[in-house]
Amino acid sequence: MTTQSEERKWQGDWGGEPAGVEDVFALAAELARRVIDRDGKIVPLPEPIQVEAELALSPPREGVSIEVVAERLWRLLECTPNTSGKRYFNQLFAGRDDAAMLGEMLAAVANNSMYTFKAAGAQVLTERALLAHMGCKVGWASCDGAFTPGGSMSNFAAMLVARNVSLDGVRERGIDGRPVAIYTSAESHYSIRKNAGMLGLGRDCVRAIEADIDGRMKVAALREMLERDIAEGVTPVAIVATAGTTVQGAFDPMRDIAEVAHEHGVWLHVDGAFGGSLLLSGKRRPLLDGCELADSFTWDAHKMMGVPLTCSVVLFRDPGLLQQSLDESASYLFQRDEDDYNPGVRSIQCGRRNDALKLWAAWQHHGDEGYERRVERQFALAAHAVGVIEADPNLTLVRKPQSINVCFAIEGVDAREVCGLLDSEGRQKVSHGTVDGRPIVRLVCVNPDLTEADLEEFFEDIRWAAQVIGDR
Amino acid sequence: MTTQSEERKWQGDWGGEPAGVEDVFALAAELARRVIDRDGKIVPLPEPIQVEAELALSPPREGVSIEVVAERLWRLLECTPNTSGKRYFNQLFAGRDDAAMLGEMLAAVANNSMYTFKAAGAQVLTERALLAHMGCKVGWASCDGAFTPGGSMSNFAAMLVARNVSLDGVRERGIDGRPVAIYTSAESHYSIRKNAGMLGLGRDCVRAIEADIDGRMKVAALREMLERDIAEGVTPVAIVATAGTTVQGAFDPMRDIAEVAHEHGVWLHVDGAFGGSLLLSGKRRPLLDGCELADSFTWDAHKMMGVPLTCSVVLFRDPGLLQQSLDESASYLFQRDEDDYNPGVRSIQCGRRNDALKLWAAWQHHGDEGYERRVERQFALAAHAVGVIEADPNLTLVRKPQSINVCFAIEGVDAREVCGLLDSEGRQKVSHGTVDGRPIVRLVCVNPDLTEADLEEFFEDIRWAAQVIGDR
Repeated sequence: MTTQSEERKWQGDWGGEPAGVEDVFALAAELARRVIDRDGKIVPLPEPIQVEAELALSPPREGVSIEVVAERLWRLLECTPNTSGKRYFNQLFAGRDDAAMLGEMLAAVANNSMYTFKAAGAQVLTERALLAHMGCKVGWASCDGAFTPGGSMSNFAAMLVARNVSLDGVRERGIDGRPVAIYTSAESHYSIRKNAGMLGLGRDCVRAIEADIDGRMKVAALREMLERDIAEGVTPVAIVATAGTTVQGAFDPMRDIAEVAHEHGVWLHVDGAFGGSLLLSGKRRPLLDGCELADSFTWDAHKMMGVPLTCSVVLFRDPGLLQQSLDESASYLFQRDEDDYNPGVRSIQCGRRNDALKLWAAWQHHGDEGYERRVERQFALAAHAVGVIEADPNLTLVRKPQSINVCFAIEGVDAREVCGLLDSEGRQKVSHGTVDGRPIVRLVCVNPDLTEADLEEFFEDIRWAAQVIGDR
Repeated sequence: MTTQSEERKWQGDWGGEPAGVEDVFALAAELARRVIDRDGKIVPLPEPIQVEAELALSPPREGVSIEVVAERLWRLLECTPNTSGKRYFNQLFAGRDDAAMLGEMLAAVANNSMYTFKAAGAQVLTERALLAHMGCKVGWASCDGAFTPGGSMSNFAAMLVARNVSLDGVRERGIDGRPVAIYTSAESHYSIRKNAGMLGLGRDCVRAIEADIDGRMKVAALREMLERDIAEGVTPVAIVATAGTTVQGAFDPMRDIAEVAHEHGVWLHVDGAFGGSLLLSGKRRPLLDGCELADSFTWDAHKMMGVPLTCSVVLFRDPGLLQQSLDESASYLFQRDEDDYNPGVRSIQCGRRNDALKLWAAWQHHGDEGYERRVERQFALAAHAVGVIEADPNLTLVRKPQSINVCFAIEGVDAREVCGLLDSEGRQKVSHGTVDGRPIVRLVCVNPDLTEADLEEFFEDIRWAAQVIGDR
């Protein structure tokens, strides 16, 4: 401890007494243990205004000891949904990963900014290795890409490059106002429209192509819309196919869409933020058949791969295009010529944390084989849920799931009410959605640490809530 | 440990044996200790290609134990610059903060996505409290804002809103091709031009306004350029003033710039990514005089405030504008009407990690008073460095520093060579820049844990390197 105290002695002058690193990690471990000990429960949330009244959240005039900070953090965590628990089905992420957590902590300890090899050393190589490996899974022997702060931003980067490739000189001279269009299914993620707004193309340029009953883009409708637009002088900027829609977990027919895209020379982006992880399983890869024909691909590791938020990747088939859209060659920053090792020239950000290290650590721990088993486990859980639903006359599976999203309706009661009651009673946290205009429960089997017994309990709770609501 | 093993038993089926949370934190603490024990050294970096050859960086087919993962992480960290050490002056961030580290770890443990109160509970309230507190420091009793993944993205969000406010209907219908312009000083951050490219305005629309000898925007030149543009039918989209330039740490004259902006009804953004933290000190606030007259403000807490990357805030004087530029009201996501507590509607991202918790924890620990002392300590270190330079006939202070960047030239030798030699010899990691077309050393006194003795040693090393290079 001597070295530490010596080195950090001045800190006492502007904050509290310095804690040793061991103390900080011990406090963190203690709080993490308390969080984990709640894994079996859903803690009902108080109203935000109540939390604000009870906890003093504003920064104080005078600081407090780190032990007091730890207790205040715990009070916050007590009013925070436990996303890693067995009763949490609310998002497209869930569960917990030891190795990823280790990598995440070390990224913060080392605190390098990921623009150059000079600034971040070997850490930029973890990004490189992962991008290449994930590109191989897509089907690209060589590719290019970046870690971005989330799936929406990965889609943004892809749409940016698509825009710059489609509209000559646009990066320098700006958008010239000619009519443009982006094509995506009505079931695609809202970031497509939002990004079109940010990119200056306008939200109105996004054509919501009709989806079939299973949530997949209708390719005939795409072709019709695209060809009509071209005939009318509209410039197509991109087609965005979805690998794993948010509600149904549906996969657009990528090979057929690629054919349309190639025929008309239109950029094809695949939003695999959710479903990209199916590339980890040979058995499930056919759902993404043809994705290798796309120009770009979004893949979030913080969803099915279970690493902490945020860990998203955007991949490009043609190396160089991303850098052409982003490089500013700031002379004070990029002081080496080896841009292969300077991811900053391919990033929408400047200063950037290492979001790759957690995934790198997790992948070392599980290996390709472990991730393949993980995906299969997620499918097995979804299949089990389907079995329970089919055996229950009061539950209706609205569609045969394409992947791990299980959407079902409940006889005689509104799914939204059921989800609300389960939440407020602290039983389950599960999301609702709409299929065929009907409210449904969306159960996403993303946490492979769940057991079949956990799912049985989930459905028992569903039945209980339906009963309570029906009796009202 | 029973609960833990019970809950996680299945993990062994897809990865290695599960480690207990205590084991994971113990491993992390051990690695952190090793990193900290290197704080006094600069480890020379091998070539990237050599690291790639020696470390097996690609994900393996079969996984390995978490202990092996930890050792592999350590090998990476050995080839990673130590940004927190006493000899690291290379970036605008440095040092280490116990409380911030604690908050960062807990954000990863809880792993909530920050779109809604429903999804992240009290954690969204930490963001709210910090945004309000930081807005008050700018001078706004009520304001609006968001945490973004870095200063460039904070500037992006501000420029997006400025664009949408300036060009009617642009979010829906897209940019119509009319001539537009953005005004910023020649010394401003490269993200302004990059963002103009991303936003569809075109990089060419950015006018680099001449700076005075101290690196501050010349307001007369701004006015002249702006008025000429308006006379020629160009629509001004924004003026971007800088609070703390990258090389010299200069502050544009914000009050005078605001006068020009208001006279012509142009959006004024202040890029205080680096220098915004001076608002924490009453004594230093005059450098930002007039910033409260701006429309938006960028402030990175991962720079002078010393929290781990990334922690950036963009603030808006008028509540509501940010949401108008970003809200998609995705029905499956935002299931509550209380958008005040749903930061997702004001975010460029969708899924988003809690970058606020580390700052929240650090601010609880240090308080406003601690941060004021921190800023003063940074200034005291810069003043000490200036004294050393002025006393040495071989060193030339190229400017009197406005803040904590101390730029100096070395008699008879090229500053770039000096920085390169200090780096390759493992003595100091310090950046170079250009002032008056002359290479200079840029010493940024951002780490308050440094002592005056550390700085003396730094200058000893500078003299040593100059001697070695001079003798060649």
